[in-house]
Amino acid sequence: MGLLHDIAHLGHVELFTPELEHSLWFFTEVLGLTENGHDGDTVYLRTWDDYEHHSLTLTGHHTSGLRRTYLRAASPESLDRRVKAIGAAGRGIGWIDGEPGIGPTYLCTDPDGHEYGLYWETEWYEPPENLRPSLKNQAQAYPARGVCVRRLDHVNFLAAETAPNGEFVSDLLGGRVTEQIQLDSGRISAQWLHFAQKSYDLVYTNDWTGSTGRLHHIAFATDTREDILRAADICLDRGVHIETGPHKHAIQQTFFLYVYEPGGNRIELCNPVARLVFAPDWKIITWTEAERAKGQAWGLKTIETFHTHGTPPVPNNSG
Amino acid sequence: MGLLHDIAHLGHVELFTPELEHSLWFFTEVLGLTENGHDGDTVYLRTWDDYEHHSLTLTGHHTSGLRRTYLRAASPESLDRRVKAIGAAGRGIGWIDGEPGIGPTYLCTDPDGHEYGLYWETEWYEPPENLRPSLKNQAQAYPARGVCVRRLDHVNFLAAETAPNGEFVSDLLGGRVTEQIQLDSGRISAQWLHFAQKSYDLVYTNDWTGSTGRLHHIAFATDTREDILRAADICLDRGVHIETGPHKHAIQQTFFLYVYEPGGNRIELCNPVARLVFAPDWKIITWTEAERAKGQAWGLKTIETFHTHGTPPVPNNSG
Amino acid sequence: MGLLHDIAHLGHVELFTPELEHSLWFFTEVLGLTENGHDGDTVYLRTWDDYEHHSLTLTGHHTSGLRRTYLRAASPESLDRRVKAIGAAGRGIGWIDGEPGIGPTYLCTDPDGHEYGLYWETEWYEPPENLRPSLKNQAQAYPARGVCVRRLDHVNFLAAETAPNGEFVSDLLGGRVTEQIQLDSGRISAQWLHFAQKSYDLVYTNDWTGSTGRLHHIAFATDTREDILRAADICLDRGVHIETGPHKHAIQQTFFLYVYEPGGNRIELCNPVARLVFAPDWKIITWTEAERAKGQAWGLKTIETFHTHGTPPVPNNSG
Amino acid sequence: MGLLHDIAHLGHVELFTPELEHSLWFFTEVLGLTENGHDGDTVYLRTWDDYEHHSLTLTGHHTSGLRRTYLRAASPESLDRRVKAIGAAGRGIGWIDGEPGIGPTYLCTDPDGHEYGLYWETEWYEPPENLRPSLKNQAQAYPARGVCVRRLDHVNFLAAETAPNGEFVSDLLGGRVTEQIQLDSGRISAQWLHFAQKSYDLVYTNDWTGSTGRLHHIAFATDTREDILRAADICLDRGVHIETGPHKHAIQQTFFLYVYEPGGNRIELCNPVARLVFAPDWKIITWTEAERAKGQAWGLKTIETFHTHGTPPVPNNSG
Repeated sequence: MGLLHDIAHLGHVELFTPELEHSLWFFTEVLGLTENGHDGDTVYLRTWDDYEHHSLTLTGHHTSGLRRTYLRAASPESLDRRVKAIGAAGRGIGWIDGEPGIGPTYLCTDPDGHEYGLYWETEWYEPPENLRPSLKNQAQAYPARGVCVRRLDHVNFLAAETAPNGEFVSDLLGGRVTEQIQLDSGRISAQWLHFAQKSYDLVYTNDWTGSTGRLHHIAFATDTREDILRAADICLDRGVHIETGPHKHAIQQTFFLYVYEPGGNRIELCNPVARLVFAPDWKIITWTEAERAKGQAWGLKTIETFHTHGTPPVPNNSG
Repeated sequence: MGLLHDIAHLGHVELFTPELEHSLWFFTEVLGLTENGHDGDTVYLRTWDDYEHHSLTLTGHHTSGLRRTYLRAASPESLDRRVKAIGAAGRGIGWIDGEPGIGPTYLCTDPDGHEYGLYWETEWYEPPENLRPSLKNQAQAYPARGVCVRRLDHVNFLAAETAPNGEFVSDLLGGRVTEQIQLDSGRISAQWLHFAQKSYDLVYTNDWTGSTGRLHHIAFATDTREDILRAADICLDRGVHIETGPHKHAIQQTFFLYVYEPGGNRIELCNPVARLVFAPDWKIITWTEAERAKGQAWGLKTIETFHTHGTPPVPNNSG
Repeated sequence: MGLLHDIAHLGHVELFTPELEHSLWFFTEVLGLTENGHDGDTVYLRTWDDYEHHSLTLTGHHTSGLRRTYLRAASPESLDRRVKAIGAAGRGIGWIDGEPGIGPTYLCTDPDGHEYGLYWETEWYEPPENLRPSLKNQAQAYPARGVCVRRLDHVNFLAAETAPNGEFVSDLLGGRVTEQIQLDSGRISAQWLHFAQKSYDLVYTNDWTGSTGRLHHIAFATDTREDILRAADICLDRGVHIETGPHKHAIQQTFFLYVYEPGGNRIELCNPVARLVFAPDWKIITWTEAERAKGQAWGLKTIETFHTHGTPPVPNNSG
Repeated sequence: MGLLHDIAHLGHVELFTPELEHSLWFFTEVLGLTENGHDGDTVYLRTWDDYEHHSLTLTGHHTSGLRRTYLRAASPESLDRRVKAIGAAGRGIGWIDGEPGIGPTYLCTDPDGHEYGLYWETEWYEPPENLRPSLKNQAQAYPARGVCVRRLDHVNFLAAETAPNGEFVSDLLGGRVTEQIQLDSGRISAQWLHFAQKSYDLVYTNDWTGSTGRLHHIAFATDTREDILRAADICLDRGVHIETGPHKHAIQQTFFLYVYEPGGNRIELCNPVARLVFAPDWKIITWTEAERAKGQAWGLKTIETFHTHGTPPVPNNSG
């Protein structure tokens, strides 16, 4: 019935890495995140503009991949409404205590098996003295170290089949598709969904291996395109594998750079260049195979590994 | 109850100018807007990223100032709900036929007398051949002329008293205050309000003359801060009066440039640098007199004319 | 003996085009050059930061390619010295009257047959009223139309053999090699030469067809990398063929975009990002085949057409 | 006789600070310089694009100010020629052993008493493993810490009288005035001089106190204007005093930010935005008092402390 946003925004994700120490170096020294506590093999990391406790949970594991995606509800009532709807649809798992700074969390899965955690209660971040910003409308002082990403921007899931997962987000979480790719066969091969004015928060892409529950990438937003260009220099000098970019996506027009963090997960650094989607009746943009064959916005061919590397790796998958 | 956004976004504004021809030159040649029809002394102008018919209505008049601010509802039901609430509060005027491309419009006023027009129906823009963009998710080809502003970003009203107008937007339009200034006396002297993730869409500032219904400025957003810096060069070479900037506001952290269009209205060119407000329970940032005395973010003193120039001019007002 | 710069800088080039009208549209509307006179099938065009009469001579012709490259001497004595040295080396052609705004010009050829014109006298540009800049240290008002390139930056010649031409520039024009590519066979396949602090002004690259006198590209510099990114958007919307980029060259670290103007000549838009070469005893950077195989700075593979497209086209050459 | 550049470029400067530890923090953590050795109360610091051993010598002292400015000659013959000329003019002091990495250095003074050191021999920087860049045409890996200035750009001296010092640089060092300020009285109050294509390397400004040998500021160049904007954020969060900017100078059109390092010396962060001066017969741009009264390029008034703060401080001088 319109714009009832029960999900306010993407909260954070928990990422698995088989190389905890190196991954931690990447997120703190290369991307410029700040550690905000740890617990055994789990480290909590935050971007400087996040008002919550952390933006990324990094956990040492025998493999790479995405453990869980957290979404913050818009109100207690919104959370309650989503929990009931998800439960009714048979996708609920149940409640757990939240991570540090996060209140009670309701777990559920999308049809492809990716785990989501929904919560309302959250502890607003209070920076220690040395990280206090000068401007009171900012969560934390600008780190001035590495790329200095501003926020976790979106998650791009791999799924055996995109459409049912897009419906899950639309029907049970209140998201809306803004753009998608439709193959000549009629099959939807990717969908971009958003909750409010950001043009996308969650993306589903068909997994070429037919596997379920995997990750294509998570993305962090920078303030400017110059930050992305500089990030490429930093990754080059630090020996971080650059997969493709910087360039501009035709879809969503995002300026991007893709790299692999040392644990093998693909990380996008992205800048939206002020683009927002305001129309409450936005007409879904559908890209055809022929249009996709043109490559990215300015003509860069989509790199082959974009269709072969996902995490965790699976047999017969180069990733 | 959370985030029920009945107002989707700022639609456009109608601006009065006593120098129609010169103002038209400013908006098309300096800012890079595109004309999309005219009717007598009224010209319809659009920014390149606007999905609607126009972003600015420019009307020749004996004076400067803001005639009306248009807001698009999130759905027919949303519009109906707002109309009922506004009518019940005694702030309604009634329905009129919309401007070109805009459906039936419900007029009302805020307590200070600024006129709003609310509507749901809108005609999606179809560019003519020579303005067709290459990417199908873009409304119009990039004009590559002048500053090339992306969108109308916000309206900053002057009001005899800020607080009642902020309440009007909060209570009757569903906006939320994100930041405000509170004088030592306790009086609120300015409020920034938003509808969704953009950190502000409407601003009220106390009018030093005690007049009602006046305008401080309207603002257009650019894609980058570089665009703002370049805009300053363009304005300099074109003889457009630069009032202050480029610099960064402490409040909202917007990167800004203020100029006067030839009709006398103050125009802000702004860039949000990727900042969005996501928290559904955002805690209002309140700035004190002492904090305001520090000037803008990097120390620039707030220019005197910021407190003396408004439109239309009034007696004993230098503006 | 050090830094006796008899050649002050690259003046301008004369380019041939079989599509004069379309090429003129490209240089004025897409790149933002300003016409400064014409004569039959020849049009004189200038970038906004050029102190001379023009930066590019565009001449309708039955084919594409470079007709001549102009270099300004550092003084009358410098010109005299160069003319004597060139004449003694048997590379001189003789004197001609200069183009509009340019004094007597001495013609000569490099070993590959590219024609150079050397001159000292030049008429300082006086802008008409409507192009007068606000700042007196600037040649012309910023055009605010299209890409708005600042200056002609360099010329990249194709040559049957690079080395003799590099020696010509070094020995007879006083240039110095800053970087080069050396194949495993020991053959030099490309050299970048400069006259002063700009890191290169002239480039020679081996012509894969063995032809002589051809052009790889001419390059215009923009003020910022953002201008290059925006140029890609503009070219996309205007239907200008983007060959490759934006990306960063490993060699010279130039940020680049390559497009074809409608006449078929390759045009580079480049930004040096503040890089200058100061060392009077700069040690030539030599890149090996293995290093070149890595592609551009951030990993972009060098596009195939970079080795097949030159102007004018020759038989068995896709260009 | 034209462009015989006996001085190739500004080498580095030695700066005094009464707060060595805090100044060191500023240059390394805020500006992003790298320490390259120390000796007692002297620390050698380098910007990442410097091919020499260091770009700044920082020495603890009882006061602030500039100890010495180093210039690299273009060749041994150039150095010899300059030494002879300076000696003949009675401005020579004599030879000393050079600083680490720097060969025999000839000391002399300008008429105002600022000390210069001229040298030819220099040790090319070899980065340790952890600072090795990926691209072989770069001196050192990009530090990705703080502002990351690229190079020492220029020195702005205070002098009791500008003109004799400008003549010293022109006549004895081979510099050329590119721009200057001339008061209504005819007195020259400031001159900008360069050695080659950079539009200025040394600046003299009249000292309002009539003192001699003092410093107005030293300047470091960044790659982009975005770096300058970011630098302002970093200085704000780190508690570094921002004096004025970011803004654009009318003179030389440099984009600037002025801050005070903890020892009290004024530091400019500047970006030339691709501007170079190529004309061998550049006509000096002379700014009048009336033109100067307009303030900086986009209208910012020149800050009062620009005419009261110099180092070291002197009696009756607020600096």
